[in-house]
Amino acid sequence: MPMKIKAAVFHGPNQPLTIETLELDDPGPGEVLVKIKATGLCHTDLHIIEGHQPQPVPAVLGHESAGVVVAVGPDVSDLREGDHVVPFLLPECGVCPNCQSGKTNICLKIGERTGTDFSRLSRNGQRIHTFVGMGTFADHMVIAADRVAKVSEHASFEGACYASCGGATGIGSVRRHDVDREALVAVFGLGGVGLNVVQGAALAGAQVIIGVDTNDAKEAVARKLGLTHFINPDKVESVAAEIMAITVMGATHSFECIGAPAVMREAIAATNAFYGRCTIIGVAPSGSELTTPVQQLSMGKTVGGLLMGGVKARSGLPSLVSEYAEGRVNFDDLISHRLKLDEINEGFAMMKQGLSTRTVILFD
Amino acid sequence: MPMKIKAAVFHGPNQPLTIETLELDDPGPGEVLVKIKATGLCHTDLHIIEGHQPQPVPAVLGHESAGVVVAVGPDVSDLREGDHVVPFLLPECGVCPNCQSGKTNICLKIGERTGTDFSRLSRNGQRIHTFVGMGTFADHMVIAADRVAKVSEHASFEGACYASCGGATGIGSVRRHDVDREALVAVFGLGGVGLNVVQGAALAGAQVIIGVDTNDAKEAVARKLGLTHFINPDKVESVAAEIMAITVMGATHSFECIGAPAVMREAIAATNAFYGRCTIIGVAPSGSELTTPVQQLSMGKTVGGLLMGGVKARSGLPSLVSEYAEGRVNFDDLISHRLKLDEINEGFAMMKQGLSTRTVILFD
Repeated sequence: MPMKIKAAVFHGPNQPLTIETLELDDPGPGEVLVKIKATGLCHTDLHIIEGHQPQPVPAVLGHESAGVVVAVGPDVSDLREGDHVVPFLLPECGVCPNCQSGKTNICLKIGERTGTDFSRLSRNGQRIHTFVGMGTFADHMVIAADRVAKVSEHASFEGACYASCGGATGIGSVRRHDVDREALVAVFGLGGVGLNVVQGAALAGAQVIIGVDTNDAKEAVARKLGLTHFINPDKVESVAAEIMAITVMGATHSFECIGAPAVMREAIAATNAFYGRCTIIGVAPSGSELTTPVQQLSMGKTVGGLLMGGVKARSGLPSLVSEYAEGRVNFDDLISHRLKLDEINEGFAMMKQGLSTRTVILFD
Repeated sequence: MPMKIKAAVFHGPNQPLTIETLELDDPGPGEVLVKIKATGLCHTDLHIIEGHQPQPVPAVLGHESAGVVVAVGPDVSDLREGDHVVPFLLPECGVCPNCQSGKTNICLKIGERTGTDFSRLSRNGQRIHTFVGMGTFADHMVIAADRVAKVSEHASFEGACYASCGGATGIGSVRRHDVDREALVAVFGLGGVGLNVVQGAALAGAQVIIGVDTNDAKEAVARKLGLTHFINPDKVESVAAEIMAITVMGATHSFECIGAPAVMREAIAATNAFYGRCTIIGVAPSGSELTTPVQQLSMGKTVGGLLMGGVKARSGLPSLVSEYAEGRVNFDDLISHRLKLDEINEGFAMMKQGLSTRTVILFD
């Protein structure tokens, strides 16, 4: 029997989200109903709201959340009512060739149960779309169980929620590469992801961690997490030259956390020519082209992408949440604002103006 | 006291090399005089002859050779008269941070003793240039000792010579990455390097090895080395689609051995989206741009370059030459033509027409 839920609904680019009552179907086979306790505002949501990424409407956006299972559908064996959970963007079926390979976090079920056919949301009989089968800007959500991590009950919901996107993506990306005490790290973009790259690099003991951001206000919180140098690209002639000056031969590990091809080009240029690795984390607008002089790569440099930090939903996320619960990973200092769902537009306005680090929406 | 030597001299783009008598100075400190016994014709030489790569003239080209030390300069302790040696494009000083790092074969002395100031060649008092401090299209050469590998006397000179460029680059590139029995390899360009990528992949046990070349004549020799599939890009609509059809999810390892940005783009597209690695081996014309849709990299794919297969001159090359001497690596089937120095222009003409696999110039 459908239940009534409260959600922030997206009706089209550059329109405010509206708080509406929607109907949510019971979870079907392989699905769970989650009562959402916290959801984070991510730049990916803002990209959609600003029309940079196609999204059918009306839709409930949001993909970063934590909550409690309140009902499970048929054929769900590893989750039960009362479990503290973190829904994840990627499924982990555990049996497909990719899950079995140990080489990637991208389960081949990635496209399943994400389309509108699988939306359990409606309003007056009209199907409501979701952002890739989620829709966390709502007090409840039905989602495929293979995208839900059971996590420690000792973690606050707001921290666990942050782990699922900015935390996993940032810290996970560092951990997928051999960042060690000799590493000279450069981080382009100190948003929710970039700050966690800084944190991950600091946890790995990197000797130099350079942050690049046009917003000077990011420096303080980044230093708290381990940043050693800060560069505002608006205040220097060449970011790559500044990074070369600090590192001598370039960053051994650079991370692009913005999704801007021009920044990717600069990040590649700032990377050690011989054994440096530039990792593209930022999500670029559809159709964007990455360009770099071929000679940038001629001596051994590597450029690669990574989605969600290489973290797997069910086998990877719980340990990160536990690290947070045990105080070994710091998400609390990254959460700058806590709002209610009906304040969500103010949250995005602050993000646009660079006034917030991470804003979390809390539900009762 | 300068000695008279015979060399093929390059006077400018698209002019035949001319066989001339030049004067070669004695080796200086840290240098050795090598009597060249075999030198190979490489596409890089052809690029220069065709004017695609800047080169001051007059110059002696050639960088792939094997020979015997006939004199050592002061301060050379690890080489002596009579040693069978293979000169290498890259130095290995052993003490710079790069040599010490274990992470790269690019010694920081790479630019040293390569310029015209260090050329020991002249004609009537006029200094003759070299290709990066070498110049193997000559019966003798003076070269920095840290670029010379002492190799097995059991290896033929023609095979040892091939090891130093096409062999090291092709086989080395495969060995730097985790090509194993599950690997699905795609090789773009079946020239002297590409064929050795095929050989390296076969030695590693790769289950699928796909070769891509516009010259159908390359298929036979490539199959002898382990090729399992051949694609002529002129005969199919999309090379990437053909490779996807064979591999299902794309090549786990692709190697671009041509130096053409359009081929690099295709090679990236043909690579497994999740954990594939595309390695750029081909040397592109100066100023070339690599372009790829950003989304090609978004799920974990990696693109990287590698110079000379990641092989180090003095600590890496000798073992490859020994493998050849012991019959574990096959260069003999790759040498299609053996010429004398005064037939060198015919050798390049055959290369241009795709009639040769590898041509070696043999000296008495």
